[in-house]
Amino acid sequence: MVLDQAQSDNGMARVKRDEFESALFELIEGWLGEAPIDVVACGMVGARQGWVEAPYSAVPCDPTPVAPFRVPDTDPRIRAFVVPGLKQMLPPDVMRGEETQISGFLSSRPNWDGVICLPGTHTKWVQVSASEVVSFRTFMTGEMFDLLRGQSVLKHSVSDGWDDAAFAEAAADALSKPEQLAARLFGLRAADLLQGQDGGVAKAQLSGFLIGAELAATRPYWLGQQLAIVGADDLSDIYAKALKQQGAFVETANSTQCTLTGLMQARKLARQTA
Amino acid sequence: MVLDQAQSDNGMARVKRDEFESALFELIEGWLGEAPIDVVACGMVGARQGWVEAPYSAVPCDPTPVAPFRVPDTDPRIRAFVVPGLKQMLPPDVMRGEETQISGFLSSRPNWDGVICLPGTHTKWVQVSASEVVSFRTFMTGEMFDLLRGQSVLKHSVSDGWDDAAFAEAAADALSKPEQLAARLFGLRAADLLQGQDGGVAKAQLSGFLIGAELAATRPYWLGQQLAIVGADDLSDIYAKALKQQGAFVETANSTQCTLTGLMQARKLARQTA
Repeated sequence: MVLDQAQSDNGMARVKRDEFESALFELIEGWLGEAPIDVVACGMVGARQGWVEAPYSAVPCDPTPVAPFRVPDTDPRIRAFVVPGLKQMLPPDVMRGEETQISGFLSSRPNWDGVICLPGTHTKWVQVSASEVVSFRTFMTGEMFDLLRGQSVLKHSVSDGWDDAAFAEAAADALSKPEQLAARLFGLRAADLLQGQDGGVAKAQLSGFLIGAELAATRPYWLGQQLAIVGADDLSDIYAKALKQQGAFVETANSTQCTLTGLMQARKLARQTA
Repeated sequence: MVLDQAQSDNGMARVKRDEFESALFELIEGWLGEAPIDVVACGMVGARQGWVEAPYSAVPCDPTPVAPFRVPDTDPRIRAFVVPGLKQMLPPDVMRGEETQISGFLSSRPNWDGVICLPGTHTKWVQVSASEVVSFRTFMTGEMFDLLRGQSVLKHSVSDGWDDAAFAEAAADALSKPEQLAARLFGLRAADLLQGQDGGVAKAQLSGFLIGAELAATRPYWLGQQLAIVGADDLSDIYAKALKQQGAFVETANSTQCTLTGLMQARKLARQTA
């Protein structure tokens, strides 16, 4: 049960290796008493530049095959743990954080077989069989969207707003002609200059071109497969729309909820092995 | 003949509409005498936010079908002109500056038919027939390379350096599987984290993936066509390598030289119609 929550923008990019504990205490110090409290974390906090390096587990394996790493030498008011990520040697790929979401998603679905899509900055497509992560593939789709929207020439032509039909058309176009991506992108600028195209339509098209290209690449992952999307609700909806348009059957689950469930399981594992 | 040259980083992004003349004078004031001197310019200087708006000419047309626009109310020591760009209504596309390079390239090649590739931030593929630009297509390949290399997670894994074999392999891979782009990109990060891949190899692969995807899209432009690349020598060499690997026959021409020749022709046109 969530009793309280707190968040901050002090992520990996802003916090130095020896500042993680103080960044955490800024958020949770008011929650602490005399008895030590368990803190269980996942994601980039376990990277080499993170709080404590938690070496990857190699797939195929259970999403959380080993107990979380204990962070040494913390303040005595906490016992802190970090969940290790997963690595795949061929083709090389890595994840940190998604393994916890996958573990949370699978906890209420014993014997689930299928594919989980985790959309985000670096979208993951994960093949699951017999409760194991068999293989996975990461796409830089979200990061490309952010860069193109915020830092490229398209920033002059893409604004807030949205258009469902424009998204659907762009996604279908990219699914059939993914190689045209770089031309379609400049087309958004030209359509603004020559036709005064609406910036919200352009935003939906930008998203559609990038997600459509990703779906062209992941066709073997979603075509005829049991498929679940684990992500933020808005983004999951967008992926689900594009996939349903292609006839795929999609279940969605909220990623925050899956993370919390996964962290609770990781805490159990930590206490069993402590 | 080039008697002297000067350049500055004060491009479109840094110069306000009413500052173009002063930015120019910072560079050329020492060259001016009492008699007015012709200044002929091309590129974004003719955009709406430029020195003077030079409305696009619509293709199909000669690369420079109208006389350059005279900039009004300049310092009496100069007579300034701006070459208008080209636009294509369907699919929407625009160019500013490349029309001058094309004009310069064609000046010594009467009756040239074929395709000109102008690699750069926004690479252009231009179909030329009977001295006219018939159609063209712009790819954001160069801008994507810069953003991914400098601003994405790949900045940690891509460094200076180069590897010809890695470029060739990446370009061939993207030519056959262009839809995999966003996954191949993250693969560069993972190959660094898991295998310590060299940053120069990663740079060549990043370039290869992006250019290979572009060549997959432009196949009808270069397959079996008379083909010329007009660009900076380094970048032209990279494109030429990838194209020759695919069996294309490629001629290259230096873009600065083509720009100068094109501007000289534009000056003639300006004087004829003045």
